[in-house]
Amino acid sequence: MSNRKLVKHDELKDRAQMVIPGGMYGHLNSASLPSNYPQFFKKASGCRMWDVDDNEYIDYMCGYGANLLGYNHCEVEAAALGQKMMADTLTGPTELIVSLAEKLVSMISHADWAMFSKNGADGNNIAMMLARAYKGKKTILVARGAYHGSANWNTPVLVGITKEDRANIIYFEYNDPQSLHDAFAQANGDVAGIFATPFRHETFEDQFFPDVEYAKLARQLCDEHDAILIVDEVRTGFRVARDTLWSQMGVQPDISTWGKALSNGYPISALCANNKLRDAATKIFVTGTYWFSAVPMAAALATLNIIENTSYLEHIYAMATMLREGITKQAEQYDFELHQTGPVAMPQMLFANDPKAQLGFKWTSELIEQGVYFHPYHNMFISAAHKKSDIEATLYATEQAFIKLACYR
Amino acid sequence: MSNRKLVKHDELKDRAQMVIPGGMYGHLNSASLPSNYPQFFKKASGCRMWDVDDNEYIDYMCGYGANLLGYNHCEVEAAALGQKMMADTLTGPTELIVSLAEKLVSMISHADWAMFSKNGADGNNIAMMLARAYKGKKTILVARGAYHGSANWNTPVLVGITKEDRANIIYFEYNDPQSLHDAFAQANGDVAGIFATPFRHETFEDQFFPDVEYAKLARQLCDEHDAILIVDEVRTGFRVARDTLWSQMGVQPDISTWGKALSNGYPISALCANNKLRDAATKIFVTGTYWFSAVPMAAALATLNIIENTSYLEHIYAMATMLREGITKQAEQYDFELHQTGPVAMPQMLFANDPKAQLGFKWTSELIEQGVYFHPYHNMFISAAHKKSDIEATLYATEQAFIKLACYR
Repeated sequence: MSNRKLVKHDELKDRAQMVIPGGMYGHLNSASLPSNYPQFFKKASGCRMWDVDDNEYIDYMCGYGANLLGYNHCEVEAAALGQKMMADTLTGPTELIVSLAEKLVSMISHADWAMFSKNGADGNNIAMMLARAYKGKKTILVARGAYHGSANWNTPVLVGITKEDRANIIYFEYNDPQSLHDAFAQANGDVAGIFATPFRHETFEDQFFPDVEYAKLARQLCDEHDAILIVDEVRTGFRVARDTLWSQMGVQPDISTWGKALSNGYPISALCANNKLRDAATKIFVTGTYWFSAVPMAAALATLNIIENTSYLEHIYAMATMLREGITKQAEQYDFELHQTGPVAMPQMLFANDPKAQLGFKWTSELIEQGVYFHPYHNMFISAAHKKSDIEATLYATEQAFIKLACYR
Repeated sequence: MSNRKLVKHDELKDRAQMVIPGGMYGHLNSASLPSNYPQFFKKASGCRMWDVDDNEYIDYMCGYGANLLGYNHCEVEAAALGQKMMADTLTGPTELIVSLAEKLVSMISHADWAMFSKNGADGNNIAMMLARAYKGKKTILVARGAYHGSANWNTPVLVGITKEDRANIIYFEYNDPQSLHDAFAQANGDVAGIFATPFRHETFEDQFFPDVEYAKLARQLCDEHDAILIVDEVRTGFRVARDTLWSQMGVQPDISTWGKALSNGYPISALCANNKLRDAATKIFVTGTYWFSAVPMAAALATLNIIENTSYLEHIYAMATMLREGITKQAEQYDFELHQTGPVAMPQMLFANDPKAQLGFKWTSELIEQGVYFHPYHNMFISAAHKKSDIEATLYATEQAFIKLACYR
């Protein structure tokens, strides 16, 4: 069925090998994906993207979460371009930094103030510094295996990292109250803060939501020990809720960190916090060349206006539910045990008893040939640009892929 | 003489106080500048910028180095906008990441390959990880007081930082051969790398170039100990030379890091390295949501083309020399001992016997009233958009400011 060719693509990969170690790095390195995945792309619009050989894909990774409303969304682009004509990276910030902080404070229920940086990891690093600055304690509790960025203290690969980089971190098991109690006991009164994720979303694992009791316990232990509860919404923010996810369980963090969807793809991350941390924030020193740039702030404001004033989220949920239900039905029909976990808008799809994702690789490899970009072991993302016709086309492709997969058995 | 008003500005500062701790943070916080400095800007073009009350300034900070060719430079903007119409932050990189790596490798004489990130500090963090990954050693030598970004291991303020964040750093005195020898001895065979700056450029200090012997010793000690020589060109790159500055002294680093001027204001930083580090680079894991975004790469390619093919640098030097000589003459005439240090394109201007920059504050405060944005204690930047008429207007203002300053005596 596939007329897919990768010609220019293969030439580019050869060129890349010369000037980029291994040909690529980081989370966008296609070497960890099935071999027919494209490494290089040319253009994108809505929920579609094209590789350098003009092969078209319905994209379910959305720039790993940066695409919330659709690539090249006209209202976001108009705001960004208008601002670009005025100013971007200057010798000082523009009015937009104030407007954007005001906007976040108005939308994020726990937030009294905001700061901005570039990487999601910047926000998490600042959160850690703030938690330590707050009362001078230094131990940070982190759920084992949880990704909060590729800084020394959290990158999942230990090459180039020293043990001192993680000397003040105690790990606990996500959603395990006893483990959290134990971590506090182990820290012996020195807990500066807890890093929490809104729900568990790690590669090669089924996703799951925390129990309300666990979230409430995290809050309670922080209160008892005057420690800071940090919720990392970088990957999840605005795709699952219009506020922190834990606020819907009645649990307010002290700090939340945001990125990706916040600006529909423009480089900016945000940290929101309550007044408890205000004084600490005036005492730490963090900064970056591009942290005050105006264009990403204009894009974020336009994105937040759409988040606040449209039913984009309900549309995402409707489309994502249609996708999940359709695939569930197909998996049953073709007798595959496929775990679709986490919120429908950020689905993780893993075959049962497939720890190395070998079935997943075959299935997604078939999908790529049919122009559907799924990920075999990382959670995916549905955007507001995914329409009914896109989901239908996707479900046609997933069925073909299940049929092919059934032949392998 | 000044008709300057700060009305909208003061309203904005009040709003900012509510939603940003202290009203602003980082290097763009005007609280550390004379009280009449503007905090918020509205637009910029060439070497000029306007604050939110439409007061105009000739800008000698250039976005702290991000503006190399002039704000809103048409060729850079055309390249960026053209790319934006195609793709920016996607589920994979574009061809531009390869083209940009190839371009840097062709221009930076020590470079065999390149990687890209967002903050200058990202590049320096990756450099540190690479140096450690190279042979498994962990000690990093850093010149005391040298700024390499606001990450935990280097931010100049210790609030929120633990002593373990700097456990594997040994400090030495910049440009002091004996101190470098001593640091190696102290590390007892465990030096992974040295962080060097092309020249000394710290706040509140006269700038100075290193001796050739010192630079050569750094290279020699790295070779003898199989350690990595890292040169941080983030602030200096492409404003002082078209290659690393040390290459002009015949000293090649193993790693150089770049940012700011590289893309004329678009958010991107680069790390260039030689083949010695290629294997290590495939083993570490570093990444970021926006590190592969295409628009800043298009801007960087356009900027590098201009760097390579025009006399932008010679123009900057001519203008910067005119400024330095003019101010030297005025300082003599009005009997001020003003130290103008470092390369003319990145001048530091400090009054003698003025450790808290009180004279500097008065002088620059007068200049702001006259529409010239100087910095009282941080090195400044001259861009390719500064023209003879701008320097003349600046020299008129500096003379007026010297006259005023003479009255304070």
